[in-house]
Amino acid sequence: MPIMSTEFFNEADAGFVQSNSNDYSDGFEGPEKKLDIRFCPISKGSVKSIAGSPSKVGLRTVDKERWQTVLDSARCTIISQTSNDHMDSYVLSESSLFVYPRRCMIKTCGTTTLLHLIAKMVQVGKECGLEVEMVVFSRKNLNQPSKQIFPHCSFSDEVNFLNKIFDGQAYVMGDVNKDHWNLYIADFRKNPTVQRTEQTFEVMMHDLDETVMKQFFKREGVSAWDTTVNSGIADLLPGSMIDDFQFDPCGYSMNGLLNEFYWTIHITPESHCSYVSFDTNVALADYNQLLAKVLKVFKPGRFTAALYAEDGAPCGDPYTAFDVNIPSYAIQNKTVHGFDGGYDVVVSNYQQLDKKVSFSNDDLIQSIESTNIDLIQV
Amino acid sequence: MPIMSTEFFNEADAGFVQSNSNDYSDGFEGPEKKLDIRFCPISKGSVKSIAGSPSKVGLRTVDKERWQTVLDSARCTIISQTSNDHMDSYVLSESSLFVYPRRCMIKTCGTTTLLHLIAKMVQVGKECGLEVEMVVFSRKNLNQPSKQIFPHCSFSDEVNFLNKIFDGQAYVMGDVNKDHWNLYIADFRKNPTVQRTEQTFEVMMHDLDETVMKQFFKREGVSAWDTTVNSGIADLLPGSMIDDFQFDPCGYSMNGLLNEFYWTIHITPESHCSYVSFDTNVALADYNQLLAKVLKVFKPGRFTAALYAEDGAPCGDPYTAFDVNIPSYAIQNKTVHGFDGGYDVVVSNYQQLDKKVSFSNDDLIQSIESTNIDLIQV
Repeated sequence: MPIMSTEFFNEADAGFVQSNSNDYSDGFEGPEKKLDIRFCPISKGSVKSIAGSPSKVGLRTVDKERWQTVLDSARCTIISQTSNDHMDSYVLSESSLFVYPRRCMIKTCGTTTLLHLIAKMVQVGKECGLEVEMVVFSRKNLNQPSKQIFPHCSFSDEVNFLNKIFDGQAYVMGDVNKDHWNLYIADFRKNPTVQRTEQTFEVMMHDLDETVMKQFFKREGVSAWDTTVNSGIADLLPGSMIDDFQFDPCGYSMNGLLNEFYWTIHITPESHCSYVSFDTNVALADYNQLLAKVLKVFKPGRFTAALYAEDGAPCGDPYTAFDVNIPSYAIQNKTVHGFDGGYDVVVSNYQQLDKKVSFSNDDLIQSIESTNIDLIQV
Repeated sequence: MPIMSTEFFNEADAGFVQSNSNDYSDGFEGPEKKLDIRFCPISKGSVKSIAGSPSKVGLRTVDKERWQTVLDSARCTIISQTSNDHMDSYVLSESSLFVYPRRCMIKTCGTTTLLHLIAKMVQVGKECGLEVEMVVFSRKNLNQPSKQIFPHCSFSDEVNFLNKIFDGQAYVMGDVNKDHWNLYIADFRKNPTVQRTEQTFEVMMHDLDETVMKQFFKREGVSAWDTTVNSGIADLLPGSMIDDFQFDPCGYSMNGLLNEFYWTIHITPESHCSYVSFDTNVALADYNQLLAKVLKVFKPGRFTAALYAEDGAPCGDPYTAFDVNIPSYAIQNKTVHGFDGGYDVVVSNYQQLDKKVSFSNDDLIQSIESTNIDLIQV
């Protein structure tokens, strides 16, 4: 049931559209930067609320216009809003924003400058009587990092930028040479003995099936909702309120609200840079079935699955989360980080079986022989 | 029973000694670079051997003088040699070299240029009828990376350098902001169905107990062997042949040979840059007891434990390898990489309990407020 608003949306500023200000000549940068900030009440202060609206407390007292001023720093625009009793959801010109009373999850793709909005976000929290208790910044490796704006050209710059504000931990998960996932966590939670139960599950897909991707090019007489239903997206988590958007000439975004849980999908369908992300905090004991459904809908050539789970999360220890055999895919590698704050992150990379590349010793010998002289001379 | 030779050793070239060519004014760089290369017979060729010496086959047919020409590229020098039926061991001016018939493990500290010797190492293998089947390069984060020589100033440069020769995978294990371990693996083994059983265990220790470290400054009338016995090092793996060396004015190295297994310790004792590494491939089902003995001997303020284990290794799945409670230490984080080649690596970081630092939310707020204006203006 999409609720649309184009009030704030200028497609010329949006990443899905070729414009003079963004150089996407070599393909759109689908992989998103993601910022998940959790807040707690400022000691001796009171959390802001709106009289007569019991669910409108904390960050949910902030209106769309105020959020747009925050988003201005990241260079993206609100194009649609949806709400339920638990959260406010915004589809953006580049990806999505979800706002809970004490939590804000925002992801932006293209050449947006996500980290630039942190100061304004902290200020918004302060106005609501809240202070930061945890910050998680993450993103997959980018296709064309040199086209980003500082500090997003490198994870190293992003970490240095974040280190000026937070005293966090930074991790590179997966093969630095291939698909990997960067993670920065600053955890200031004051009561580590409380058992936390949050978990988030992300699937980042590349090299997608071209027939599937054709659905996400704008077609006359086909609405975003038609595409949501016909592609199989609507069935991924049935019973959700869905806010979807079809970009012109191509690209698709949706936010799903399933009671207190969010889910969101962003699609870059062009064959030379195809990318789809699926992201949710829906509380499942096992994500394998959901993962299988996502793979069936999008048919990626390769994908990265990432799971963040706190010690009390329904999925339990995530170490073995994806150890079941995934038909048609071979696992390339798996990285697990355990944190003493009581949470684990697991990131696994998979390749479609018929696309798996093997390396021969002959290639190696040839490579050594061709570089031999250079190396000896170093 | 140290067997000494100073034939190749010029202390002025050694990292433990302050010299004009190496700038250790801010402390010696203890953390080593490590290269573990495994070889297999070149197809349709024969592996070199020495008649009448059944154990002298493959790389073990190479003499000390030839190894020194290889080591010249890394800028380090052989100072001692020991052998048993299984391997040749060399103590170097900066760390150690172990040579098996089809495997070569070399680690060098200071500002040595370890990766520069790869081409010569490959050439030595070729002369012995061998070709590379696996390369593992690893090192802990360095204290002063800017003082290194290319490509060792950054892991990124090292990876680019290695990528010119091998088609490998590169990983950063642990917090990029703090203690972490870099790993590059290129695996060309032709028969992945063979169950491999190799495992290596490393402990990299910082902020060591000053009383313990005093033992590793050269003292009149105290031999290296006296120190090996009195410090408790000799008891770590009883029954070993030990080749030890006390540097002047300070610093200590030892190679241990326990049948087919090596172990090696390198010590930088100065309080402002104290560092000790312990490294072995001894096949244990459980490393916790050995780790406890190592910690008791050296008393580090913090340490990193790294375990590489192939699927058939005696220690089993290394994921839970260090999950037992280590008295007086708190685990900071744990990283596990699983590889589809049939091996896992786990790296854990620990801090002495009384040295653990906690961060407050007040510090964060102060930090945000001081950088607030800058960030908004970005």
